[in-house]
Amino acid sequence: MSTQDNWLNKVNWSDDGLVPAIAQDATSNEVLMVAWMNREALKRTVESGEAVYWSRSRKKLWHKGEESGHVQKVHEIRLDCDEDVILLKIEQIGGISCHTGRHDCFFQKLENHEWTVTEPVLKDPSEIYKR
Amino acid sequence: MSTQDNWLNKVNWSDDGLVPAIAQDATSNEVLMVAWMNREALKRTVESGEAVYWSRSRKKLWHKGEESGHVQKVHEIRLDCDEDVILLKIEQIGGISCHTGRHDCFFQKLENHEWTVTEPVLKDPSEIYKR
Repeated sequence: MSTQDNWLNKVNWSDDGLVPAIAQDATSNEVLMVAWMNREALKRTVESGEAVYWSRSRKKLWHKGEESGHVQKVHEIRLDCDEDVILLKIEQIGGISCHTGRHDCFFQKLENHEWTVTEPVLKDPSEIYKR
Repeated sequence: MSTQDNWLNKVNWSDDGLVPAIAQDATSNEVLMVAWMNREALKRTVESGEAVYWSRSRKKLWHKGEESGHVQKVHEIRLDCDEDVILLKIEQIGGISCHTGRHDCFFQKLENHEWTVTEPVLKDPSEIYKR
């Protein structure tokens, strides 16, 4: 491990080696999605300038947009006071962050004790993931 | 468990009964902090209109601002596509979200492989938590 990696050691990785990472639109400040990163994901994000996460379901590195083309150009990376949450300020290529084909993942809003879908599907997922 | 609690069942609580909750400024859209919620914390948040989290370190419910006075008035609650992350749009009373006395918790920015502190301490923590 080189001294170059000191910045990675500063992150307070959980027992399973992960931290949550928030993707926020660099222009509008909208919160688009939350995914998880391990050490390698964060390192590759910095090296490539595009968001790379750790997929907990697939148990592998996930270069966001690798299938959909909806990559996230990273403008800024921040770490919180406890050093266990990462905030990415990004540009969302294609304007679709969510695998449901919506602009962002937070499309369910609590209203009168019910979760109401508030955002439209911009592109059918079968069209997004046909490659 | 009453049918009133169906909306709580919709949340995909982790094995330890928690989900991350992001507090976002309802006006500026800035991401202020991330904490954790269990079922009871989310229920109390909705009932009271103020953010209640689960403190993983103290292992108890934590009404944000209970000591500092820096409560968070909740304007909107959202859930993501996987139903395992909550987004609160809030008004931060006192303008200080972070226990370090800063506006928000994401004050460390990655610059040339170093985390640089970019935001000032607005109030000394010893002044905030003297009660």
